[in-house]
Amino acid sequence: MEEEFIQSRQNPRVKLLSKLRDRSGRRKLGLFVVEGLRELSRCVEAVGVEEIYFCPEFFKSAEHSQFIDKIRAECEIPICRLSEGAFEKVSNREGCDGLLGVAKQWGCLLSDIDLSAYKNPTILVADSIEKPGNLGALIRSADSLGAGAIILTNSVSDIFNPAVVRASQGAVFSAQIALSTPQEASQWLKERGIKTFGAHLGASDFLWDADMSIPSAIVVGSEKDGLGEDWNALLDCKVKIPMSGLSDSMNVNVAGAIFLYEALRQKSE
Amino acid sequence: MEEEFIQSRQNPRVKLLSKLRDRSGRRKLGLFVVEGLRELSRCVEAVGVEEIYFCPEFFKSAEHSQFIDKIRAECEIPICRLSEGAFEKVSNREGCDGLLGVAKQWGCLLSDIDLSAYKNPTILVADSIEKPGNLGALIRSADSLGAGAIILTNSVSDIFNPAVVRASQGAVFSAQIALSTPQEASQWLKERGIKTFGAHLGASDFLWDADMSIPSAIVVGSEKDGLGEDWNALLDCKVKIPMSGLSDSMNVNVAGAIFLYEALRQKSE
Repeated sequence: MEEEFIQSRQNPRVKLLSKLRDRSGRRKLGLFVVEGLRELSRCVEAVGVEEIYFCPEFFKSAEHSQFIDKIRAECEIPICRLSEGAFEKVSNREGCDGLLGVAKQWGCLLSDIDLSAYKNPTILVADSIEKPGNLGALIRSADSLGAGAIILTNSVSDIFNPAVVRASQGAVFSAQIALSTPQEASQWLKERGIKTFGAHLGASDFLWDADMSIPSAIVVGSEKDGLGEDWNALLDCKVKIPMSGLSDSMNVNVAGAIFLYEALRQKSE
Repeated sequence: MEEEFIQSRQNPRVKLLSKLRDRSGRRKLGLFVVEGLRELSRCVEAVGVEEIYFCPEFFKSAEHSQFIDKIRAECEIPICRLSEGAFEKVSNREGCDGLLGVAKQWGCLLSDIDLSAYKNPTILVADSIEKPGNLGALIRSADSLGAGAIILTNSVSDIFNPAVVRASQGAVFSAQIALSTPQEASQWLKERGIKTFGAHLGASDFLWDADMSIPSAIVVGSEKDGLGEDWNALLDCKVKIPMSGLSDSMNVNVAGAIFLYEALRQKSE
């Protein structure tokens, strides 16, 4: 396949790519950008990409050229080289590594979630998470701690935001993720016999007192305000993690990971 | 007390303050900068500050002026107003809130750590942590999950780095923190009958199989390489957290928090 080499920052394809930085541009085109060797490799494997752009001047190791060579040899993905100036215009990263792909967005429907592989599932529900970095980190933790699915309610960031993709280290490509309202999510979980657990500073029971050996959903709320009123009314069980020291709160990613660990521990017994 | 109003970015005090951005400047002067209402309030309470600088044009809420009014009324801390230009020069934050203090550094000696308040202590050891944000987050987690002390070995960032102070949300002011070599730390822990636990992907036991109901130290390693050879040779016990999904590693702050939670859970039983 003949490879194009784009040198101008004004090239129409470069302009189009730079539109994918914004949520509105991503939505309109139904595409998103995946940057960096690790994330791009995982995206190619897990969901495929439409196009790959590279700039060898920014490569950080021999693995970067090997990746491009492998794509050339084994895949039918169109590849295009960019000049440093053009790559910088489309990159979202400080200290980019010269690799970038464009992938198609997919629907994130609750009805597409398939739990048949899970005998005793644990689900993560993330409500009103504001920072893309926190959302990505939560998706990474949920993926590595065995969550069967991740449901985003009152979602502020979209999962195709470059900062979400990056912080998830590519877990957005492998995890089952759905968007829904708290009410729909609660109904969906109830229909499947999955009990909902949320953190609440005013709870009387500690997390380790809760029975999470059963199918369970962990609900975590926004960085600033914790769980919102809708989830507080919908939850089956409220528990707390005892807190000491100066902090009056816990990072949402840390709290989510601790709940997921507790569920994993109880289910393994 | 008469309050100065500095308008020039070239003012010698402004120049001196901007030197505190760098580790070398901080070391030479034995001072560090604390920025933002939450962190600065906690610093005033916990360890005191030498001077406070403010720029009302950047204040984000009425609490910011109330804070300055309270300092004027109740404390002997010298206060100085800066122009927007001057404040921007000394601030380390995007979206600063117009409040900044200068505090004295303190020694972080192992010999100063006092565990007499802890019947059954849990210690966090953080080895070779590279990113200041991760170090700060670990300190915050350790403080909120009841660690009696935090020992930093092969430390890359200093705890007076503005990004560490910020990510710790001020927990650096209340936690007992010491710097040491792995060998000294291991010896110090042994002398106190504290057993060391570390995460290792090749371990055969899961974290929940380890007996952490006793005095225990949790050792976490660098973001990139995990535990180094020195700690691998010194550890009493290696355990793993089972991992699924695409990720081959866990964020160091998340891993540390899960270990600390497990120790807390076992000790509460």
